[in-house]
Amino acid sequence: MQIGMIGLGKMGYNLVLNLLDHNHEVVATDVNKEQVKNITNDGATGVESIKELVSGLSTPRVVWMMVPAGNITEDVLAELKNVLEPGDIVIDGGNSNYKDTLRRAEELKEKELHFVDVGTSGGTDGARNGACTMIGAEPEVFEIIEPIFKDLSVENGYLYTGKVGSGHFLKMVHNGIEYGMMQAIAEGFEVLEKSQFDYDYEAVAKMWNHGSVVRSWLMELTQNAFSKDPKLEGIKGVMNSSGEGKWTVEAALDLQVPAPVIALSLMMRYRSLEDDTFTGKVVAALRNEFGGHAVVKK
Amino acid sequence: MQIGMIGLGKMGYNLVLNLLDHNHEVVATDVNKEQVKNITNDGATGVESIKELVSGLSTPRVVWMMVPAGNITEDVLAELKNVLEPGDIVIDGGNSNYKDTLRRAEELKEKELHFVDVGTSGGTDGARNGACTMIGAEPEVFEIIEPIFKDLSVENGYLYTGKVGSGHFLKMVHNGIEYGMMQAIAEGFEVLEKSQFDYDYEAVAKMWNHGSVVRSWLMELTQNAFSKDPKLEGIKGVMNSSGEGKWTVEAALDLQVPAPVIALSLMMRYRSLEDDTFTGKVVAALRNEFGGHAVVKK
Amino acid sequence: MQIGMIGLGKMGYNLVLNLLDHNHEVVATDVNKEQVKNITNDGATGVESIKELVSGLSTPRVVWMMVPAGNITEDVLAELKNVLEPGDIVIDGGNSNYKDTLRRAEELKEKELHFVDVGTSGGTDGARNGACTMIGAEPEVFEIIEPIFKDLSVENGYLYTGKVGSGHFLKMVHNGIEYGMMQAIAEGFEVLEKSQFDYDYEAVAKMWNHGSVVRSWLMELTQNAFSKDPKLEGIKGVMNSSGEGKWTVEAALDLQVPAPVIALSLMMRYRSLEDDTFTGKVVAALRNEFGGHAVVKK
Amino acid sequence: MQIGMIGLGKMGYNLVLNLLDHNHEVVATDVNKEQVKNITNDGATGVESIKELVSGLSTPRVVWMMVPAGNITEDVLAELKNVLEPGDIVIDGGNSNYKDTLRRAEELKEKELHFVDVGTSGGTDGARNGACTMIGAEPEVFEIIEPIFKDLSVENGYLYTGKVGSGHFLKMVHNGIEYGMMQAIAEGFEVLEKSQFDYDYEAVAKMWNHGSVVRSWLMELTQNAFSKDPKLEGIKGVMNSSGEGKWTVEAALDLQVPAPVIALSLMMRYRSLEDDTFTGKVVAALRNEFGGHAVVKK
Repeated sequence: MQIGMIGLGKMGYNLVLNLLDHNHEVVATDVNKEQVKNITNDGATGVESIKELVSGLSTPRVVWMMVPAGNITEDVLAELKNVLEPGDIVIDGGNSNYKDTLRRAEELKEKELHFVDVGTSGGTDGARNGACTMIGAEPEVFEIIEPIFKDLSVENGYLYTGKVGSGHFLKMVHNGIEYGMMQAIAEGFEVLEKSQFDYDYEAVAKMWNHGSVVRSWLMELTQNAFSKDPKLEGIKGVMNSSGEGKWTVEAALDLQVPAPVIALSLMMRYRSLEDDTFTGKVVAALRNEFGGHAVVKK
Repeated sequence: MQIGMIGLGKMGYNLVLNLLDHNHEVVATDVNKEQVKNITNDGATGVESIKELVSGLSTPRVVWMMVPAGNITEDVLAELKNVLEPGDIVIDGGNSNYKDTLRRAEELKEKELHFVDVGTSGGTDGARNGACTMIGAEPEVFEIIEPIFKDLSVENGYLYTGKVGSGHFLKMVHNGIEYGMMQAIAEGFEVLEKSQFDYDYEAVAKMWNHGSVVRSWLMELTQNAFSKDPKLEGIKGVMNSSGEGKWTVEAALDLQVPAPVIALSLMMRYRSLEDDTFTGKVVAALRNEFGGHAVVKK
Repeated sequence: MQIGMIGLGKMGYNLVLNLLDHNHEVVATDVNKEQVKNITNDGATGVESIKELVSGLSTPRVVWMMVPAGNITEDVLAELKNVLEPGDIVIDGGNSNYKDTLRRAEELKEKELHFVDVGTSGGTDGARNGACTMIGAEPEVFEIIEPIFKDLSVENGYLYTGKVGSGHFLKMVHNGIEYGMMQAIAEGFEVLEKSQFDYDYEAVAKMWNHGSVVRSWLMELTQNAFSKDPKLEGIKGVMNSSGEGKWTVEAALDLQVPAPVIALSLMMRYRSLEDDTFTGKVVAALRNEFGGHAVVKK
Repeated sequence: MQIGMIGLGKMGYNLVLNLLDHNHEVVATDVNKEQVKNITNDGATGVESIKELVSGLSTPRVVWMMVPAGNITEDVLAELKNVLEPGDIVIDGGNSNYKDTLRRAEELKEKELHFVDVGTSGGTDGARNGACTMIGAEPEVFEIIEPIFKDLSVENGYLYTGKVGSGHFLKMVHNGIEYGMMQAIAEGFEVLEKSQFDYDYEAVAKMWNHGSVVRSWLMELTQNAFSKDPKLEGIKGVMNSSGEGKWTVEAALDLQVPAPVIALSLMMRYRSLEDDTFTGKVVAALRNEFGGHAVVKK
């Protein structure tokens, strides 16, 4: 098929290479002109602008956006709405909030444009060699673009998840689960680290990946990480997050689902961003007030 | 009544003064001889040793231990068992684990000694001017010593809680609740602190203490704390703990009671003792492994 | 002062009585005509419509809305915008989300109307006999209406909290703290209930209210509740919620504040609304899959 | 090698078959005589008693206990201590608490017996076809018995974890991580279940197992479970637990490790055992007290 790719970051670039491997024809653009040149060398048709990209595709066009969620996605869509024609298909493969996706699909519909939301998992390596994709779309639109996902994904690694929004929602929940699994693994290793025993963490993770209940890709990555730095002495425990975990908790709140593990995984990430906490100061001050317990002065 | 007091720390000393105010006769001792001298000046009969204390009391003796829980309580009890006589009464007014209390009561029973467990709340000021006491004891023993608690406590501020162990168990749960209330208050103020608004925390706490649902002694202490340091800039958010919160969580686990708020109050205290966490390192390393997300190098 | 009150529910009605006690002149309306009649008998000027209410007030008018947050508040405001005149003041005393408040203040500003957000705590009894109020407003507007709050509130029980939005934000956080305190108290009593001891809960709460660290209005209410039903056998543990706790957690997420205690208080409320959980089914099914652990069949 | 196996339940029986496959000689016993007969038919030497088992092994004997943790393990060990001879080796392959293990190793040492603690993961299928084993032992003892674990386990699926106690401690933490991972997965599916979308859960789990970040054995089991009952309508969400999760939380508390995710996973299991909660009753009663909010009558 012919596909237009907007966004040649870590994910988008690898997806293009993956598509080219499967003999798709890709017209690609990015604000970073260096990447446009590189992707041309790699076999795609690199172009300078979204306008040029659109005019380089035959109708009905299939345009894949792989750009940061939020404002940039919004801007690219605004531009696309002006240059695409009825019947064209826009795929958002980024980590957009499903509420935005639902709104955007409505807005595109007014122009007779089709919107497809794709959750993409498996990291940059997956994007290159076989991703896991969850696709929300009108069924007849999905039929048109299914070959893309069949080729991009590992075997059995793509799913039509239902109406528009369902792909991003599912990817969001996937990430919420991921937060919980990562925090569970990490808490376990902290218990080991503070225990009276002296474990070789790489060996532990490796052994757990062979036959245990907790064997998983995340445990394999844990093994990798410890193989490079046995006690992780070189890094700080700062846990950033990029939105999907927060949205999962917000969705849980909206749906009145008790999701303590996902919520706490997120909150411990926030805690890791703080050197000191106002919460802690208030509790310390209160202990001092009623019990005369010493506070730690700054 | 005649009471022997072992332990003249912040709590014990104040309890003696409180007892003297109510015309009780107190024989008191402590390993700190300075405190023994001081309490003598304040009207008690200060003595050098537990042996001397015991010989200075008429039978059936009433001996109150106000010493740190754990080994010291264990040691004092061991000594008391050797010098007391059948029918004598030992009161443990400290923050002992109720499981220890149950065991100790059994051990004392073998010597025909009575054991009484008293949970004491209200801080050092309460000990001096009117405490809150929860008393576990054999009913006929409680009858003998009730006047002490009536005098020591604020009006309506003492309760016979049932058989031995029930006083310390109740005090433990009281502290568990206290942990939860303190953390709830503190989290609220951190939300205020990070908000777009600019509150005067002392004024907020004061207003909340006049008519709001959250009015409480802890909120009054919050007001006091902010009156001394409006943004708590002088102290660090290090939240120590002294065992009772942990025991409450352990009891909840033993009894299969879901107690997430008390448990998390405790765990956030532990978190505040860590500058960096192994948990955080593992999560950061994993994010780097699958997504190429940058880690913070040390 | 002359005040227009829209909304004569439990809270609004009591506020009017409270205002009348303090010799304010109140014009009041409600969709429930019975309440309009009653309040007229109680000394206010009951009117049939918002239009009539507005025409019954002299400029600059002070109109207090005490209606359910959300759509009804939105509708009343829409109507008010059409009938009020530049310089008039609208007070929202309900539990509105501060984000709505910020938006509404902007919308009213376009019509040169002033918006005031008031968080009201203390329950229905407080509304009647002395509330606790937190007021966000332009400073010069607050000066005009301060006498109302001085009279409505218990002594020291009102606070000018800063710019518009700050009143509702503070009330929201107050409720978040309240959730945490309530859950902490409740967890404590469940530990007592499942313990080996046999406590009289009313007596425990009463004793704790006299001198303990956890003495508080909520503990007094706990005492009241147990005085009516010593083991709460007549009620089910269904914990509803009305939005403010959820908003506090959402605000904490937005501000990256770890607030595990407030979050878990809310999530345990949601859990109490479920008879059975899908989460539980999945875990039970998994235990069966890997360990052959029996599941409970429906 | 020659191995004595005490305990022919789901796990022990499968371990014997696994050992026989690898040409080990097994003398086996169980209180269930039917199982003794069966295992004899399967190629082991079934015997009637522990005494007989011990006399059927040549020294230094290797005796593997695969019996329920707690009292039964204690009783079997007491019997073994009386019949084994200095130099013999006792392996505890059950889910014993590592604190018991440390104590028991000391007790056996007094009789010059060696104690080995083995954490076994992978479920009953793993026991039969390739387990994951983590072994704490004196190093020279491990050398003797290593061939057993090499054969029983999947390739790379066994690890010498250090001194006695380290195997059970590691297995305990493994289970704690497992609790967290399961709860994370389960919460995610509850969010899906309550969402506006209509997912095929088996298909979702299958897709996630092909290329996503959360691919794992637990997700494969999730897929299996949904393949049998697409909405899990036939089972109740009752989540039992067997001790290891609780011990992990207790260890975390002892080591002052904040482990909110593992703790909450456990507490939500406890919550699932309750039809109604005292916590909920107290909160509901309090809401009624201050706000007049209706309670649900029983």
